[in-house]
Amino acid sequence: MNYTKDLRRVLMGPGPSDVDPRILAAMARPTIGHLDPDFVQLLNEIRADLQYVFQTKNQLTLAMSGTGMAGMETCIANLIEPGDPMLVCINGAFGGRMADIAGRYGAEVDQLETEWGKVFDPDQIRKALIKKPAKIVGIVHAETSTGAHQPIEEISKIVHEHGALLIVDTVTSLAGTKVAVDEWRIDACYSGTQKCLSCPPGLAPVTFSEAAVRKLENRKTKVQSWYLDLSMIRQYWDSERLYHHTAPINMNYALHEALRLVREEGLEKRWQRHLRHHRMLRAGLEAIGIRYVAQEGHQLPMLNAVGVPDGVDDALVRKQLLGEFQIEIGGGLGIFKGKVWRIGLMGAASTERNVMLFLGALEKCLKDHGYRFTAGASIAAASDAGGK
Amino acid sequence: MNYTKDLRRVLMGPGPSDVDPRILAAMARPTIGHLDPDFVQLLNEIRADLQYVFQTKNQLTLAMSGTGMAGMETCIANLIEPGDPMLVCINGAFGGRMADIAGRYGAEVDQLETEWGKVFDPDQIRKALIKKPAKIVGIVHAETSTGAHQPIEEISKIVHEHGALLIVDTVTSLAGTKVAVDEWRIDACYSGTQKCLSCPPGLAPVTFSEAAVRKLENRKTKVQSWYLDLSMIRQYWDSERLYHHTAPINMNYALHEALRLVREEGLEKRWQRHLRHHRMLRAGLEAIGIRYVAQEGHQLPMLNAVGVPDGVDDALVRKQLLGEFQIEIGGGLGIFKGKVWRIGLMGAASTERNVMLFLGALEKCLKDHGYRFTAGASIAAASDAGGK
Repeated sequence: MNYTKDLRRVLMGPGPSDVDPRILAAMARPTIGHLDPDFVQLLNEIRADLQYVFQTKNQLTLAMSGTGMAGMETCIANLIEPGDPMLVCINGAFGGRMADIAGRYGAEVDQLETEWGKVFDPDQIRKALIKKPAKIVGIVHAETSTGAHQPIEEISKIVHEHGALLIVDTVTSLAGTKVAVDEWRIDACYSGTQKCLSCPPGLAPVTFSEAAVRKLENRKTKVQSWYLDLSMIRQYWDSERLYHHTAPINMNYALHEALRLVREEGLEKRWQRHLRHHRMLRAGLEAIGIRYVAQEGHQLPMLNAVGVPDGVDDALVRKQLLGEFQIEIGGGLGIFKGKVWRIGLMGAASTERNVMLFLGALEKCLKDHGYRFTAGASIAAASDAGGK
Repeated sequence: MNYTKDLRRVLMGPGPSDVDPRILAAMARPTIGHLDPDFVQLLNEIRADLQYVFQTKNQLTLAMSGTGMAGMETCIANLIEPGDPMLVCINGAFGGRMADIAGRYGAEVDQLETEWGKVFDPDQIRKALIKKPAKIVGIVHAETSTGAHQPIEEISKIVHEHGALLIVDTVTSLAGTKVAVDEWRIDACYSGTQKCLSCPPGLAPVTFSEAAVRKLENRKTKVQSWYLDLSMIRQYWDSERLYHHTAPINMNYALHEALRLVREEGLEKRWQRHLRHHRMLRAGLEAIGIRYVAQEGHQLPMLNAVGVPDGVDDALVRKQLLGEFQIEIGGGLGIFKGKVWRIGLMGAASTERNVMLFLGALEKCLKDHGYRFTAGASIAAASDAGGK
């Protein structure tokens, strides 16, 4: 890597997002041991702050030593025993991954699918559970591949009426929009550090309800993954401090500082900030004829998935945005490859400045690629929307 | 965590080890995307540098997004299919873990045990394989719980004569003493970043031989862990750059810089440095009557496991070393708990200054705790040994 180059990207893709300099500075502090009393204290503070962002009192709340996908695998690995029936709701790439992982851990997976970009109606879940009961239901709150924002509360009621446990993916939503683990009765919830927490990738916050802990404690088989086995890892995070693996010390410094920044801003204000800049961006994009792919009324504030305009080359525009403006946005995944752009406004990257910079830069790139704007279209629509 | 405290510990435990300021500075660079052309270039450089430290031409050489134990699980998860017979050699805590993990992945595990602190004789492996053939043999090169240094070359010949593949744990040895993956014909080898690479914990370097890759490619079942599935992860590290999970960007900056430091010093000089300071430390410890627990002639240079002198309280001495001198050393694991100290001289911590500082500090602590020194004992023996 060429260290002399200016690598101050503006990270407006699906993650990682821009990292606050305070977090980078915290990460560069001298490494200490994973059993050092000062590090143990830091873990206690991280737990308390994670309880705050997850809005939970769950004792089993911690940061797994891997990225967001390790969080997904942790929830499945610890709650599934071979033969357990699991209902997985799929409306994008990450629901599909959940089904794949559940199958590897021996679950009898029942896939409930709906169109990419749509959210699930609670009745769909009810019917599926009546047709085939499940012990575990998995669903994605913020589908990073489509930008769909799935309501959880009603579905959670139905899942619990049917005696199942609920796993929810909040990798992209946590700290960027409301996630209320206790209020919504989520049993296992996971996230990543590199989205709305605006920390570098490398840790996966996870929280388990009492019911989920009981399922874990009553397992008849060992958790299939040793590295992700919460029955051992909790003994390190709890007062025993039993050595399991060497925690990524400096990554935990970073997460600790990222969580402090969330506390300082306040969770609700942070959610509002994400919503405000999403509205600005949407107004600007729609003014130039660009459309969201997620269902109306269910669009994520931090992940704006929009259709690539007809006749415009997806990859060329992204390359120009990166080369000319140092702006990174994401391309489409799976069936959306080449057809969708994913524009992130996450954590420290969710600013008015970034919205304006991006809209101006995109307009320039689209003009260069021969895109015909609607008469009178203007990104000024964005600033009008900011006050809404 | 109290950020105003001086947390400049001297890390002389079993890892993490002291981190060079250049590495900490690299880690604090602005985060960029995991598909950014500059990051992709950095991964290519990391691969080339890992090939150098592993002394291998293996194409499948990369850093897993987890700590050293994730490296152990990666090798087992990718090479074991349910029902595969595996011989695991156990002479300490980490061999025991290998057996545990292999069982979780469905291996029919045969445990070959020898006393903690001893190394295996090649004939023991030969007899075990004649008695019960195995597809995979697992052994620890540097047993971090005992300080035993296991010769690999002869055992590798026997393993291959019996048609098995060899997995070797080099978490503690890599970059601190000779590890020669190609010359020794190791099929799967894993390490951690926080030992002799002197990088913060968070990544696990792994390398697979062509024979191991063939076993992976010919699997009839999916790898049980999605997060550690090399059949997918290699597509991200290879030219396809297929998204699997978001790599821990800043941890990779750190590893990249740590590997540069190894290149600058030169691998053989680095091995010699570790050996030199080990000899100094050993001379000093033995002069005051402290004995190594690992078999004579098979003591690791970077991990010095010694018996806690009779009548001395293990925990009190370690607490004083940390409180009064900011020196961290490790206690014993498993059957060695309370009976053994583990003194690391790894990477940036392997210096003459640290040897002298530690010996002086230990002498003070032992005196405070009423330890009776042999007449004429002196840590000056340490400096005499440096030149050997």
